[in-house]
Amino acid sequence: MNLNYIKPNEWKIVEEGFDKDNVTASESLFSLGNGAMGQRANFEETYSGETFQGSYIGGIYYPDKTRVGWWKNGYPEYFAKVLNAPNWIGIDISVKGKELDMSQCKIIEFNRELDMKEGVLNRTFVAELEGGDTVKVKSTRFLSMKLNEVGAIKYSVTPINFDGEISFSPYIDAGIMNEDANYDEFFWEILDSREDRNEAYILSKTLKTEFHVCTGMKIEMTLNDLLIDIEREVSRSEKKIRYTYKSEMKSGDTLTMFKYGGYVQSMNHPKRELFNASRRSLEEAAEIGYDDLYQSQKEAWATIWDTADITIEGDISAQQAIRFNIFQLNQTYSGDDSRLNIGPKGFTGEKYGGSTYWDTEAYCIPFYMSTKNKEVARNLLLYRYNQLGKAIENAEKLGFKNGAALYPMVTMNGEECHNEWEITFEEIHRNGAMIYAIYNYVNYTGDLEYIVSHGMEVMIAVARFWSQRSSFSSEKKKYVILGVTGPNEYENNVNNNWYTNYLAQWCLKYALENLDLIKKSHPKEYERILDKTGLEADEAHHWREVVKDLYFPFSEKHEVFLQQDGFLDKELIPADKLPRSERPINQKWSWDRILRSPYIKQADVLQGMYFFENHFSLGQIEKHFDFYEPLTVHESSLSPCVHSIMACALGREEKAYEMYLRTSRLDLDDYNHEVHEGLHITSMAGTWLSIVQGFGGMRNFEGKLSFNPIIPKNWESYSFKIKYRGHTIKVFKNHEGCKFYNESDSPIDIVVKGQEVKIFNQDLVVI
Amino acid sequence: MNLNYIKPNEWKIVEEGFDKDNVTASESLFSLGNGAMGQRANFEETYSGETFQGSYIGGIYYPDKTRVGWWKNGYPEYFAKVLNAPNWIGIDISVKGKELDMSQCKIIEFNRELDMKEGVLNRTFVAELEGGDTVKVKSTRFLSMKLNEVGAIKYSVTPINFDGEISFSPYIDAGIMNEDANYDEFFWEILDSREDRNEAYILSKTLKTEFHVCTGMKIEMTLNDLLIDIEREVSRSEKKIRYTYKSEMKSGDTLTMFKYGGYVQSMNHPKRELFNASRRSLEEAAEIGYDDLYQSQKEAWATIWDTADITIEGDISAQQAIRFNIFQLNQTYSGDDSRLNIGPKGFTGEKYGGSTYWDTEAYCIPFYMSTKNKEVARNLLLYRYNQLGKAIENAEKLGFKNGAALYPMVTMNGEECHNEWEITFEEIHRNGAMIYAIYNYVNYTGDLEYIVSHGMEVMIAVARFWSQRSSFSSEKKKYVILGVTGPNEYENNVNNNWYTNYLAQWCLKYALENLDLIKKSHPKEYERILDKTGLEADEAHHWREVVKDLYFPFSEKHEVFLQQDGFLDKELIPADKLPRSERPINQKWSWDRILRSPYIKQADVLQGMYFFENHFSLGQIEKHFDFYEPLTVHESSLSPCVHSIMACALGREEKAYEMYLRTSRLDLDDYNHEVHEGLHITSMAGTWLSIVQGFGGMRNFEGKLSFNPIIPKNWESYSFKIKYRGHTIKVFKNHEGCKFYNESDSPIDIVVKGQEVKIFNQDLVVI
Repeated sequence: MNLNYIKPNEWKIVEEGFDKDNVTASESLFSLGNGAMGQRANFEETYSGETFQGSYIGGIYYPDKTRVGWWKNGYPEYFAKVLNAPNWIGIDISVKGKELDMSQCKIIEFNRELDMKEGVLNRTFVAELEGGDTVKVKSTRFLSMKLNEVGAIKYSVTPINFDGEISFSPYIDAGIMNEDANYDEFFWEILDSREDRNEAYILSKTLKTEFHVCTGMKIEMTLNDLLIDIEREVSRSEKKIRYTYKSEMKSGDTLTMFKYGGYVQSMNHPKRELFNASRRSLEEAAEIGYDDLYQSQKEAWATIWDTADITIEGDISAQQAIRFNIFQLNQTYSGDDSRLNIGPKGFTGEKYGGSTYWDTEAYCIPFYMSTKNKEVARNLLLYRYNQLGKAIENAEKLGFKNGAALYPMVTMNGEECHNEWEITFEEIHRNGAMIYAIYNYVNYTGDLEYIVSHGMEVMIAVARFWSQRSSFSSEKKKYVILGVTGPNEYENNVNNNWYTNYLAQWCLKYALENLDLIKKSHPKEYERILDKTGLEADEAHHWREVVKDLYFPFSEKHEVFLQQDGFLDKELIPADKLPRSERPINQKWSWDRILRSPYIKQADVLQGMYFFENHFSLGQIEKHFDFYEPLTVHESSLSPCVHSIMACALGREEKAYEMYLRTSRLDLDDYNHEVHEGLHITSMAGTWLSIVQGFGGMRNFEGKLSFNPIIPKNWESYSFKIKYRGHTIKVFKNHEGCKFYNESDSPIDIVVKGQEVKIFNQDLVVI
Repeated sequence: MNLNYIKPNEWKIVEEGFDKDNVTASESLFSLGNGAMGQRANFEETYSGETFQGSYIGGIYYPDKTRVGWWKNGYPEYFAKVLNAPNWIGIDISVKGKELDMSQCKIIEFNRELDMKEGVLNRTFVAELEGGDTVKVKSTRFLSMKLNEVGAIKYSVTPINFDGEISFSPYIDAGIMNEDANYDEFFWEILDSREDRNEAYILSKTLKTEFHVCTGMKIEMTLNDLLIDIEREVSRSEKKIRYTYKSEMKSGDTLTMFKYGGYVQSMNHPKRELFNASRRSLEEAAEIGYDDLYQSQKEAWATIWDTADITIEGDISAQQAIRFNIFQLNQTYSGDDSRLNIGPKGFTGEKYGGSTYWDTEAYCIPFYMSTKNKEVARNLLLYRYNQLGKAIENAEKLGFKNGAALYPMVTMNGEECHNEWEITFEEIHRNGAMIYAIYNYVNYTGDLEYIVSHGMEVMIAVARFWSQRSSFSSEKKKYVILGVTGPNEYENNVNNNWYTNYLAQWCLKYALENLDLIKKSHPKEYERILDKTGLEADEAHHWREVVKDLYFPFSEKHEVFLQQDGFLDKELIPADKLPRSERPINQKWSWDRILRSPYIKQADVLQGMYFFENHFSLGQIEKHFDFYEPLTVHESSLSPCVHSIMACALGREEKAYEMYLRTSRLDLDDYNHEVHEGLHITSMAGTWLSIVQGFGGMRNFEGKLSFNPIIPKNWESYSFKIKYRGHTIKVFKNHEGCKFYNESDSPIDIVVKGQEVKIFNQDLVVI
């Protein structure tokens, strides 16, 4: 595959010239989504070359129970698979009876653009078919932000050098399989279908989970921009409905199809209403009309960009990259449905099962909280609050008692649905991230009531888990936490992972503090919480014991906390001494070799120091950064951003910029040779953090919003906006200094480079 | 299920009275095998109740590539599945048009006997069908030891209280599925079938591995012991051929079917010869005739029992159990084919894939070596020698170099075919067992030439592995072995497992010693070996460094070697303090809880002290036994035997007997609630060791065969025989003393209770 084939452009992702080797990568990079559904950038017309066809619907999954070899006691009942959904975009084209297939034609021109400003995918190409007949094709497609069950396609064909019959065959196909299915298992059952007057609908349901989905299409056609009525031929099988419209065309004529399509599903409609709901949604789209729907798309994205945009002057490639990240995050999650969450690959691939990970709490919440509003962040917290019961059940399965909760590592509905013991059972630090997210939200928004109304219950359940999960070592005379996997998944089943222990201790302290606070400030609510959770005094007493006597591995010699017990027994050779041919190690080395090596997949001790920067001196942070960063191979997409932010805080501008590039263009430049599998959506929030918390130096410790902006040498300027407690603040930085605009009606106190500053509405403060 | 329903009997396994709940357990317990094939004790006639149908052919497997969720880099390409083979035993019976099915009749009498002395399975029952017609059925079945491709069934039906039509419908069915197949996948392809004159054959092949198997049957019938010729009706489908023989019978008449059946397969015959080979094998059986074939079966087993038998007087249940173990070991492996090995479940179930584990080297070799002859043990060593190339490839896949070998944890043909990283990649101690087996064999047989001709090459490859697998810890200033799983699989990815380190060090020392020996004694062979392996002087130098500086975790406080680094951080609560309701922990606890507990699945440190008892003082062994045994939960079938042997050596007769009972009646009394899945074949060798090395106290250190017999209180006497360097020695022990018979022509020196004794041929020495 050719790396770096994407052309630089401030607002667009651009591919010029057709290269079959790039097709699957581009299908990922040009993906579309509207928060409720999404799809890879597959061609509408037939493509017989290598392709990865994928359409996905938010919340819809399949509980796969395939087993191999050995199954550990306590394993989840199923592994959640994100399901490839029916295809509604397909339009087969034939030219004088020959199928148009880019893989089989001579492609004279090819241009594909993802217009991030407008939220639209454009493609134009000129193809010469066998025999020399040449056609020009133009397709525009978007998934409506206004009507989130609808997508629209405008697809035009113009014969260039011949007169003859062109036929358009749009279809819906509910017979789509997953790439990762064993034995070609089909995860859907087709229930019924209807078709009438250029509209077709297929009702299907997922096996086992029984999500019902109605897939629909509605067709309109124009010849040279005039509406025409062509008789359709209908070809109908159980899983597929296909129309064919034939037209005799003159050279230079343009035949255009408007195809409205999409899904309605049973999470949002009664099952028996789905046919009607689907018809209504497409009729609404058609009544609005293609052009006006397009207009509404532009407006919706303009609203998003108004606060979410980050500008970078002087580095077009960096500008393109940051917008790409922000665009994809907004395509994946719109924040208005607390049943949905942010899958690591969003709607762009099957991997990671489309499920929810701790990525949301650790990386995504700050992005949505700052660029949308606190309700969106609150919805993400409520997602976990609503699943507390399942988290308690999950902990019970593992032998915990008395209302202790262990949130799942991977979930669709609150149940654990991952099946590696070293992750599912041992990567328990995620439980701490749930509490960190509450702290982060409350700290940022000031919404203390959330703790009283919801957060405290979660904190108690998680504190119970940590207190039961630590055990007393007679040898060390300390509490220890044995058998865990830290954020660095290149270590499994280690003892006393510092990050996990630190987070555990903090969760216990934070729960105790908040219990005290609520007791004083909300005595009635306090009683309700005690009542509901059954919390006893001796529990809190034990929590205090664990807080006091928890063990943290430390090296006197290196003056650093150790990632885990025994870390210094490894051969501590810096990662840059490894031959290039052995990188990335997760593709070149066997698992045991990785495990006994010192190499760190993603920030682990440093992740803790990032979360709790205010607990450590800059000197301490620097020692740890210098010890761990050289051993870090950044083979998780979530790694470079944290290092970039810390490097900024330490004034290591060059390292910060190096790490920033890795995070921001991870997918566009395909650093890890895997973009064809889908995009790294959750890490895109990390890229945003790299600018706002990294270069921008934004912090929010002890109730004060502060900034400490620096700028990479080769940028002229950058700017970003954040929403903060009812204010919208724009930060601009160039090599002369920085400016702060307060776009809101009331003044706000901020700290810039250690100085307190009050900025009034529409005020411009230059420092 | 009813435990302990098996009736005590010295030579038989007996079930009396029919209980549907026992069917699947009995199918395991009454299994038949002849080293080349085996089968669960399924009924010949239809049984519609719960049953686990299983027939297996030695060496035949399927490479299953089903994947779930996550796949680690370096994982094996497949997981080997033992394949359920075609059914040749089936005989449907109908009585006046009604099907005979024990699940649907009233069973008036039922008796099932596995006659271990003769190697035959007998079953008689009287069944009353709906309407009151009553029949008596008698079936006898064996898998011939003389013709190992043939089995024979004599099946008789006698109407007791009616006249009427009885029909026999024998069949062969090649459409058999595995219990553990996902999505009902069928692992065989049917190629062709033939039938003619009461004989039928189906040729099928396994998918992917392409083993070809011809399954055949040949039918003869008698009425009241006179041969009769009944016209057969033929019912034939792709996968099954079924004959029907109908006979009008009078009350008291006995209609008997002789069914010869079995498999010929492509490991032993050219593929295109299989039909003919199958026909020849069945014709040979029929020519010999049922009675004479039965006679040859008795003789073959008499020969086996002559040396392999262990007698126990005064405890019929112990007598039954030890014979059961010896019987099953001989059914599983006959020792004449170096391509075969001993699967942990033999031919009695699907679990563990029927493949080869380190069980063979650690437990089974001594049994076969002592009760058969050195060629059998040598064949087991050659099995691994022949797979050395694959073991080197396997190590290369994991990043090892220069001819280092890692033998697979689980294999069918030398390739690794297990897919848990903590086992496949980390349970590397098995590599040491390969060398221990060579040492054990040479030590016992005196066949030093094996080391020169084969063993040294294996030793070099394994020594290379250990020297590369250890790394230098700057912190400890010692070599360490990080990231392993010891024999105690309730710990994964630990550092410096004492057993692994000890075995690694010993392997390096033993290789160095033998290199020196061969250099002196066989200089030409020495050159050949250096040439073939490319061994360099600096390699041996590095081996010496590792031997000198390898680290062993030790507790000064407890004066014991620690199972691994950090073991003392666990809560060391003795296993007998756990509530009964939480045992076995592998069925009650989640994996993470097991891992962070101190509980030991099977001997780990103690396994090393068992192997190398002569390296430690009795006082040291006692300290370790007292430290580890109370933490051991014996949830591997390979655990109690080692503890029984050590307890004997320590004079802990009561503990020894407790452990002996667990090992010897593990399956008969179904200690682990899993006998329905199949028998624990390899651990049966451990039971034999518990008598011979445990109570008998046999040792063979420094070239001297020694005994130190003790006897459990409630036994009157026991005796066993061993073959040793051309001698056959019988040991008899009762409460008065012990007697030694030398059955061979030449005298032999042995040590009894520390005293040297010379015993002459047919001599009886009483001590």
